[in-house]
Amino acid sequence: MVSVAIVYHSGYGHTAALAQSVAAGIASVPGAQAHLIPVEDAEANTAILDGADAIVFGSPTYMGSVTAKFKEFMEVSSKTWYVRGWADKLAAGFTVSAGQSGDKLNTLVQMAIFAAQHGMVWVGNDLLPGNSSSTGSVADLNRLSSYLGAMAQANSDQGSDVAPPQADRKTAEYLGKRVAEAAQRWARGRA
Amino acid sequence: MVSVAIVYHSGYGHTAALAQSVAAGIASVPGAQAHLIPVEDAEANTAILDGADAIVFGSPTYMGSVTAKFKEFMEVSSKTWYVRGWADKLAAGFTVSAGQSGDKLNTLVQMAIFAAQHGMVWVGNDLLPGNSSSTGSVADLNRLSSYLGAMAQANSDQGSDVAPPQADRKTAEYLGKRVAEAAQRWARGRA
Amino acid sequence: MVSVAIVYHSGYGHTAALAQSVAAGIASVPGAQAHLIPVEDAEANTAILDGADAIVFGSPTYMGSVTAKFKEFMEVSSKTWYVRGWADKLAAGFTVSAGQSGDKLNTLVQMAIFAAQHGMVWVGNDLLPGNSSSTGSVADLNRLSSYLGAMAQANSDQGSDVAPPQADRKTAEYLGKRVAEAAQRWARGRA
Amino acid sequence: MVSVAIVYHSGYGHTAALAQSVAAGIASVPGAQAHLIPVEDAEANTAILDGADAIVFGSPTYMGSVTAKFKEFMEVSSKTWYVRGWADKLAAGFTVSAGQSGDKLNTLVQMAIFAAQHGMVWVGNDLLPGNSSSTGSVADLNRLSSYLGAMAQANSDQGSDVAPPQADRKTAEYLGKRVAEAAQRWARGRA
Repeated sequence: MVSVAIVYHSGYGHTAALAQSVAAGIASVPGAQAHLIPVEDAEANTAILDGADAIVFGSPTYMGSVTAKFKEFMEVSSKTWYVRGWADKLAAGFTVSAGQSGDKLNTLVQMAIFAAQHGMVWVGNDLLPGNSSSTGSVADLNRLSSYLGAMAQANSDQGSDVAPPQADRKTAEYLGKRVAEAAQRWARGRA
Repeated sequence: MVSVAIVYHSGYGHTAALAQSVAAGIASVPGAQAHLIPVEDAEANTAILDGADAIVFGSPTYMGSVTAKFKEFMEVSSKTWYVRGWADKLAAGFTVSAGQSGDKLNTLVQMAIFAAQHGMVWVGNDLLPGNSSSTGSVADLNRLSSYLGAMAQANSDQGSDVAPPQADRKTAEYLGKRVAEAAQRWARGRA
Repeated sequence: MVSVAIVYHSGYGHTAALAQSVAAGIASVPGAQAHLIPVEDAEANTAILDGADAIVFGSPTYMGSVTAKFKEFMEVSSKTWYVRGWADKLAAGFTVSAGQSGDKLNTLVQMAIFAAQHGMVWVGNDLLPGNSSSTGSVADLNRLSSYLGAMAQANSDQGSDVAPPQADRKTAEYLGKRVAEAAQRWARGRA
Repeated sequence: MVSVAIVYHSGYGHTAALAQSVAAGIASVPGAQAHLIPVEDAEANTAILDGADAIVFGSPTYMGSVTAKFKEFMEVSSKTWYVRGWADKLAAGFTVSAGQSGDKLNTLVQMAIFAAQHGMVWVGNDLLPGNSSSTGSVADLNRLSSYLGAMAQANSDQGSDVAPPQADRKTAEYLGKRVAEAAQRWARGRA
């Protein structure tokens, strides 16, 4: 049994919706368990985080990077960092903003750098680009063509009942499945 | 009269089309002159580059960053860098790839860092995000919501006659106009 | 008279020391005024920020990016962003951490991207690299060889009385002077 | 037996020296084999790359990013990318420049983004920071405090006989060992 934690901050529900998609992807893998942890509850769930085989980070992109709330969590983790508590766990990330591209990549880079500081191993999104030819559409998996992690786009005037669209939720679900399978492989390979 | 050079590499014509849009934006400003320089001709046009008030960099995003061809140009410029030849010029950038977001932001960051090495002053795209609400569309200016520079998207199976679409060309044109006006202000302010 | 605001967050005093160096650099320019604003006081000083010709951002690098406290300030600025309140102001940045390189560049990129979202114009550090040859030393200006902004290094076990060292403070001071002079040029050039 | 390829470009020998250190680290792991591939020979060694369990990328940082020569290799790999030829391999990176920090982080980010495009899994450097307190020294492992990959610094006026110093070579060696061990774990875990 592998355990995959999803730590996320959601301002308006869109990131929470994606987190649930990631969790569904994880849960679709026999022998993998998903733990959804809103960043506000992270400290209360230290044991789950420290015991996880993989941690998936989720945050909206606000003004070009992870939210202040999510950054607080990153900073609290410095105590764990110092004792190498998360070293060699797998890590992955996802983000959402209103723009199609926006500065979402900067958020994913910020997460990957953070994970590297912890000595974690980064699992990206291995989907080929979607919606990148004349036969593509906004319904494609990986419609924003992101690789370091999963990107989603939510219209600024729509609630999480409709935004981000299904394509982005399916992409997040795919990432969850991929991370769970990688976590199983990584766990099996332990010497 | 201010002079704005556009140095660009185009693999399949899409970046060249955008470069022409940037040039049109520059030329729309009375008293500003645009110089289109394919990167292959950069060394032959050293005098124009060294004499310019501003330089706009353009490259497709290939495998996540500027093309090897464009990077060659960056490296040749190290001689100019060493003597601070471009210091205090204005700089800006644009890029295109098939994905909606893809890793285009990484290309713009690479250009901005390069410009900073030269002591140049970076002028971004000051447009608010486009196509980021339910009333937006792919016809919006800044439809990809990019700020550090101009982003464009060209379907992988379409030539530069149709891709990138008008919205992206207009966004590039806007950036050209903005850089030319900034170059005039910067030139007027010289002590 | 140009006004340059320095908004900074300091956890242990090192960033505050650098902010004072930046302020000294600004104040060394006749006709330029520096405003030191700890990020905790930013909202109370909205008028100074909105009226400034240039804003310099300062934050330690914690776990690879600006502090949560500084990020809060960035997010509060989204109201200003929406009305383009800081558009066309100059911007610059500085950061400090215990590592020689660490992930300080990521912090500067985060600041530059943030400034671009606001439509600000980014002024980097135009110093050539220091301490990069056998004749260099840790006493060199720009001893960490940073260009997008000013980098400083403070030993993790030393207070702000001795860390960061003079070389880094002089580099920050240089950046302050450069930004003030650029702000004057930019102000003079206003149509 | 796992196979780890090191593909690198070296302009003046410093990166080649680091590549040899990485190879020594790999070879120190029983059951792991290192393949040193200068980027000029990459196409002739396609079979080794495609058969490797992990690929380590190495390039100097020139003007803020990987060299044009290394970028050519990245672009040639787009054919492999399209058929997912390197998906699920492990990847890692190292870089060197004359500055202590410089823009080396941007090079490592560029490599990590490239690896993510290929669907590779990124293994960083899990060493705690070196030379970051008053008891540290330039002889420390990870003396530049880099996490996404290994950073080295080579004085601009010294050959690869003395630069980069031993500390950086040992850090690169450590990364090689870490990647080889991770590759073994990852190989063992294959379903």
